[in-house]
Amino acid sequence: MSDDSGFHMPLAEFRRHGHDLVDWIADYLETVEQRPILATTGPGDVRAGLPAHPNEEPESFDAVLADLDRVILPGITHWQHPGWFAYFPANTSPPSILGELVSAGLGVQGMLWSTSPAATEVESLMLDWLVELLGLPGSWRVDTGPGGGVIQMSASDSTHTALVVARERARRNGAAPQDLVVYASSQAHSSIEKGARVAGLEHLRLLPVDDELALDVGALRDAVARDVAAGRTPCAVVSAVGTTGTTAVDPVRAIGQVARASGMWHHVDAAYAGTAMVCPELRHLQDGLETADSYTVNPHKWMFTSFDCSAFWVADRQELVQTLSVLPAYLRDAASETGEVVDYRDWHVPLGRRFRALKLMFVLRSYGAVGLRHHVREHLRLARELADRLAADPRFALVAPVPFALVCFRLVAGDDATTALARQVNESGRYAVTASELPDRTAFIRVSVGQTSTEQRHVDGLWSLLDALA
Amino acid sequence: MSDDSGFHMPLAEFRRHGHDLVDWIADYLETVEQRPILATTGPGDVRAGLPAHPNEEPESFDAVLADLDRVILPGITHWQHPGWFAYFPANTSPPSILGELVSAGLGVQGMLWSTSPAATEVESLMLDWLVELLGLPGSWRVDTGPGGGVIQMSASDSTHTALVVARERARRNGAAPQDLVVYASSQAHSSIEKGARVAGLEHLRLLPVDDELALDVGALRDAVARDVAAGRTPCAVVSAVGTTGTTAVDPVRAIGQVARASGMWHHVDAAYAGTAMVCPELRHLQDGLETADSYTVNPHKWMFTSFDCSAFWVADRQELVQTLSVLPAYLRDAASETGEVVDYRDWHVPLGRRFRALKLMFVLRSYGAVGLRHHVREHLRLARELADRLAADPRFALVAPVPFALVCFRLVAGDDATTALARQVNESGRYAVTASELPDRTAFIRVSVGQTSTEQRHVDGLWSLLDALA
Repeated sequence: MSDDSGFHMPLAEFRRHGHDLVDWIADYLETVEQRPILATTGPGDVRAGLPAHPNEEPESFDAVLADLDRVILPGITHWQHPGWFAYFPANTSPPSILGELVSAGLGVQGMLWSTSPAATEVESLMLDWLVELLGLPGSWRVDTGPGGGVIQMSASDSTHTALVVARERARRNGAAPQDLVVYASSQAHSSIEKGARVAGLEHLRLLPVDDELALDVGALRDAVARDVAAGRTPCAVVSAVGTTGTTAVDPVRAIGQVARASGMWHHVDAAYAGTAMVCPELRHLQDGLETADSYTVNPHKWMFTSFDCSAFWVADRQELVQTLSVLPAYLRDAASETGEVVDYRDWHVPLGRRFRALKLMFVLRSYGAVGLRHHVREHLRLARELADRLAADPRFALVAPVPFALVCFRLVAGDDATTALARQVNESGRYAVTASELPDRTAFIRVSVGQTSTEQRHVDGLWSLLDALA
Repeated sequence: MSDDSGFHMPLAEFRRHGHDLVDWIADYLETVEQRPILATTGPGDVRAGLPAHPNEEPESFDAVLADLDRVILPGITHWQHPGWFAYFPANTSPPSILGELVSAGLGVQGMLWSTSPAATEVESLMLDWLVELLGLPGSWRVDTGPGGGVIQMSASDSTHTALVVARERARRNGAAPQDLVVYASSQAHSSIEKGARVAGLEHLRLLPVDDELALDVGALRDAVARDVAAGRTPCAVVSAVGTTGTTAVDPVRAIGQVARASGMWHHVDAAYAGTAMVCPELRHLQDGLETADSYTVNPHKWMFTSFDCSAFWVADRQELVQTLSVLPAYLRDAASETGEVVDYRDWHVPLGRRFRALKLMFVLRSYGAVGLRHHVREHLRLARELADRLAADPRFALVAPVPFALVCFRLVAGDDATTALARQVNESGRYAVTASELPDRTAFIRVSVGQTSTEQRHVDGLWSLLDALA
């Protein structure tokens, strides 16, 4: 941009503000632990702190940045705080932040291979790397196929996409849309109910679970048989490797066998727990992946990679592309027509796409497999240690096994005491946890150990607080 | 992150690399004009330049960054090059890049108001600001309603969402899904065909257009009447304010009247051209917006804001939320239950969401309404000047009106000459244009003036090249 660049920020100013903001972020990450972990603002406070109307004249960027500290930070709930044990982690890390920066600077639109080959090829390569790092079936690699992986925005998008492809396959096989049935456990993520509704699939069976809150395969078989007998068509089943409520693990292989026998699509949702598969000793928990038609893991949860970066694989990419490809004149392209290249616009609902694979490459190369395994194992260890403490203390009871790094427990004193304890922990300002409910409405507390900067002392501190409050 | 942070990049290193990368981006934007505008790599070249397998041990970040220049840049098609006249622009700008940086550093997950109130409230405020800046109906404001705006990933997502809400409304009114019909012009964006397919809507009528390639309302009325007579149910109609092919402008008010008379949802797609409405003198082109049920403009096209940032409004947010809300125990939340706050997870398919409103705020405040109008008017002026030159030259012919900043023309010498000219321009390495086809298959060239740093000299240079090659 030259001197006559009108109202654009001169690049010299961009450098100055950019350097300052890099330091601002480093300062933020260095000191976030000292902030109250949950936002301190009430409804409308942030809005009220900002101009009610857009400014006519340009505003100085220094004034805009001053609002970061004055207005924005008090309204931030700090997911990057090392005391973050709520929901699942939504990690970032220094290499990922730098990847986002570069991606924003390049500002490319990777809808077609030709609209920036690097965006497509780095993405395919990183998804193939993840096949190796996570021990996924080799046939899911983009380079050798027939499957392939793509970055989507969220696991909800992946589930929705899988259900749409399953629906279209069933329709091509002659089934009527209103007769299609989707199955998952009662503990399945809300995105399955939402995805089915958005895809126009009316029949969703949320099936009983066993004592460990994993899908009861007998109940699945019975439900499929009842639906078939009633003239309906089993369309798709979703296995969870790590449910959101308690990280229960559905029996992937047995579910896959039912799916194959009845011609259903089998989607495996490992949005959170999939990252743990960098540790070979945990892969038995997803034994049977070769029966899956699609699979999701979110590096933007536990793999130190910023949102959005949801990795989605299909076992056969032809079915996906056949469902989602629409080719107008302005998107016709010589490279695409050779069939030599992947055009990711045909792998999901959106057309445009940013260069999200760059941050994933920065993370994977910077940590190495060794670094990822180290941190995941450390989170697993910290979670088990906390679980052992809770199990050994008569005031507490674990409500579910701890296959990964989520600890689910309650106070034996009852639901009200448990809910109050969660509230008191959150009011401490030092730790955040999530209050939830079992299928029988029993209240429990979720403690998810996995924030990038969480260390022994944070889990110890949480335990001390629980101990003091209980 | 403290000393025992394992394999995490120390924050001192993050500062150093961050400063270097800010400068790398500034250097890139300063010099991008000297690079060949289209990627110079063939299929597989980028991939072949990177390690085939993930590294076990951590790699030095300097080595990772060295690959940016060595491997990534040759594989980049430079959307931020001032000679970019292809597709539509996918602009970024210094304030937007800085907004992405801060958003990545904060790393918050804005699915609920409570999971970071600032993310939700800045987004609502910015969408309300856009209502003012673009002269949209005041009832679409989030603060006073009944409508409201939300940031989605892309216009494809917005169209798909609108069609799903329309489908659910029709179903609640008793229509069978297989009887629902969607209408748009034959010039409508491929996302409408894709959105209808994904939403399971089988009947899509792509209607005839008039001489200016705008939807023929008489044809719409006839098609609706035929469908109703055949027992089908009109479900939704999409108006384009600026089609992708030629930026033709459908008659919004007349289409809205047909929609209301037949109970259809009316979605208005102004993904590209909506930005031009910062100029009041252009708003007559979307007269009748108060008949719309939903509307999209992409600040990530022409408003100097990085992808992804697609703004989507609904006239009544209750219908949207009713369709997309699913509430499991782990997402129940005290603030949400008061009804005082907006939870944007219920406004689209994904659950997770990053803080995309921050970059939009940085852009809107930094440019001011005056700055946005200045640059848009400059692009409009440059496009009209080029159109005048082409119209005045007997070798060229415009193939469509130029209501915004897209110039569509052909060589009178014919289709082969036109296609060859587009190829030669792209092979120059200095400019990128898009070859396309009219409905009758006549070849033409799209020149979209709107890249952030495009100036008079770039459009003059393109004209000189066209003049020399023709």
